Amino acid sequence: MEKFQPPRGTRDLLPAEMAAREALFSRLRGVFRSYGYGEVWTPAFEDFDLLARKSGPDIEQELYVFTDKAGRKLGLRFDPTVPICRIVASSPNLPKPMRFCYLTNMWRYDRPQKGRWREFWQAGVELLGSPRPEADAEVLAVAADCMRAAGLKRFAFRVNSRTAVEALAKEAGIPEGKKADALRALDKLAKVGKAGVEKELQEKGIPRAKAEAFLGLVGQEGGRTDPGIARITELLKEMGITNVRHDPSVVRGIDYYTGFVFETMVEGHEDLGSVASGGRYDTLVGLYGGGEVPATGFGMGIDRVMEILGTGKAPVPHLLVAPVREELAGNALSLAGELRARGVACEAEVMGRSLRKQLEYANSRGIPHLLFVGEKELKAGAYTLRDMQTGKEQQLSLEAVAKQLRG
Amino acid sequence: MEKFQPPRGTRDLLPAEMAAREALFSRLRGVFRSYGYGEVWTPAFEDFDLLARKSGPDIEQELYVFTDKAGRKLGLRFDPTVPICRIVASSPNLPKPMRFCYLTNMWRYDRPQKGRWREFWQAGVELLGSPRPEADAEVLAVAADCMRAAGLKRFAFRVNSRTAVEALAKEAGIPEGKKADALRALDKLAKVGKAGVEKELQEKGIPRAKAEAFLGLVGQEGGRTDPGIARITELLKEMGITNVRHDPSVVRGIDYYTGFVFETMVEGHEDLGSVASGGRYDTLVGLYGGGEVPATGFGMGIDRVMEILGTGKAPVPHLLVAPVREELAGNALSLAGELRARGVACEAEVMGRSLRKQLEYANSRGIPHLLFVGEKELKAGAYTLRDMQTGKEQQLSLEAVAKQLRG
Repeated sequence: MEKFQPPRGTRDLLPAEMAAREALFSRLRGVFRSYGYGEVWTPAFEDFDLLARKSGPDIEQELYVFTDKAGRKLGLRFDPTVPICRIVASSPNLPKPMRFCYLTNMWRYDRPQKGRWREFWQAGVELLGSPRPEADAEVLAVAADCMRAAGLKRFAFRVNSRTAVEALAKEAGIPEGKKADALRALDKLAKVGKAGVEKELQEKGIPRAKAEAFLGLVGQEGGRTDPGIARITELLKEMGITNVRHDPSVVRGIDYYTGFVFETMVEGHEDLGSVASGGRYDTLVGLYGGGEVPATGFGMGIDRVMEILGTGKAPVPHLLVAPVREELAGNALSLAGELRARGVACEAEVMGRSLRKQLEYANSRGIPHLLFVGEKELKAGAYTLRDMQTGKEQQLSLEAVAKQLRG
Repeated sequence: MEKFQPPRGTRDLLPAEMAAREALFSRLRGVFRSYGYGEVWTPAFEDFDLLARKSGPDIEQELYVFTDKAGRKLGLRFDPTVPICRIVASSPNLPKPMRFCYLTNMWRYDRPQKGRWREFWQAGVELLGSPRPEADAEVLAVAADCMRAAGLKRFAFRVNSRTAVEALAKEAGIPEGKKADALRALDKLAKVGKAGVEKELQEKGIPRAKAEAFLGLVGQEGGRTDPGIARITELLKEMGITNVRHDPSVVRGIDYYTGFVFETMVEGHEDLGSVASGGRYDTLVGLYGGGEVPATGFGMGIDRVMEILGTGKAPVPHLLVAPVREELAGNALSLAGELRARGVACEAEVMGRSLRKQLEYANSRGIPHLLFVGEKELKAGAYTLRDMQTGKEQQLSLEAVAKQLRG
């Protein structure tokens, strides 16, 4: 019979991976809470019109789109920010600023490759209502705390301003109508190099001289100071965040950014691309009917972070509670319950196996201790606790077992 | 401009609701871990063939089904058990028993009604590899611990055996070919009453006398003892779980159960139906090419449980760090960072507002304290902490602020 697999570009997350992810999520939730962000969850699918509004109908090529049985055209969420903007647009009376965070999966119909999945996860924040550099600085500070909470130490932020790049394009003589093409080409600089960008610029009808001038201006790193970026960098310095570099080539692909943008590179893992990215998107809420709400935010790519962190072993309980005879299975279940009530994670035997088979199983699962349950032990209220690694055995009351294993 | 809403039958979960859910999830994870269950996550969508295999292609009416750009027919997950069986079927060498748990959303194209959403959540366990009553007893014990972990005290389990109901159907003279129809009709007993079930039985071509005989036998509660149920009930009693009643009318709608089934009713909330249900499904893994793997499990309906529990208020941070002049915004950001490092959750002002406006904001958000940041305070290293409720103010060092608010 054929075996089923997860659909192409997706995978199952098994206990070792999930335990590591849950530990990460719990630390990230702690960071978000410490800044006053409130978690939200939005449905997996949205009206396709909502999803397409910012990018145009071509986005359909990159999404999972379907029609429900009532004829509604829906699409799987591919971004956490759009649904949050929908919430804000329909709640005009919430006090500002609004601080929302999310830890969620989303879907994109993309060519699967390293660190890129068709079902992927992001965690991040959206700070809505403030047009000021303090808001951008806070968002980057949250990202910095998230990186540290993930255990990543050697990372750096690359910041830029979309308005500054647009000014450089103008200075290079790139016509207004080609500006979007120029930014989209520049976004690929890290991937395709200077020659690749120049080639794309020319393919888009931008004369070679202007393309060179544009790349020349962009290349003058630090040579120009964008006042917005300068103020954000200054605020970050006050907050003790100094691993921030102005990089005029950082544009971020997504087309809703309006000003400050940033990305986060981890030393030795540059091939994964940015693991935490974001910026300012002052026009997005307005697009969904919510008036003008300036906003800034970032998202961390959980799958990329997990790629760097790796996973340990799947967690196992402290103990297997092992009846010495099949008839004592009920006693084993009941003792296991008493141990759990005392804080000991344990499995009870439910297979009716011989003691030898139970020892083999505990070994294969890597369960570190075994507790024998026999008539004699039940009468005495003292059980044999076996250390599976050393083979050492002790006679202990349940209380003493709990004390030893919890400690 | 039109406002967008979540698609029909779905909703956004906002911070108050999410905080309550996360607290519940964290307690449920604790229960699962204490029994040795390892968490898994499976993709939101699966091959439609996988989803349809157990129920036949008619299930398509109840699912979100779509075709991806490569022509694969996919469907959104509508059940947590099928994907876990897929994992088990493709991993024949894992040591047995296997204990998997999940906390996940899923989707069903259903008529929206109270406690029933098109995107809904379940948390539960699957215990695979054991055909024995100890396994069923363990699963119900996990459910009992989950109910208690959710803070629910007044609940009762209704248990039954599918094989026992089938025997009653046979005894009543219902032909083998009509057995599935009879069980499906019986499943609606709580909803449509005895007359409704009789009507459906007759519509399915079962003569009135046989229908009455069947319902008569089913109604003899406790009058017959199914040996499987009796043993499970005995094991549960040994574990201290006594709120278990044998109810021959419990069938559970889903057609994969093969033996023991149970549901959980909360006193005063019977209208929500069962909040935690499960049973034995010995043939499901085999359906996906995994050989014979006896299995049992249960799932808790998180949306129904939340309906009972209700949600509190959205969490707010301890404190707003409020610069007295706009120019001190950077100092406020930086002090907020120092307070967070000392365990204080706080917002910093990012709107450039006057102190009066900041006080108004703290009030509207329900933030209980405000810390004033002025030049004098910065020089002295002592800040004014205001209790927003009493209006009381104290001069304190950051350390003292942290000590007071954390405590």
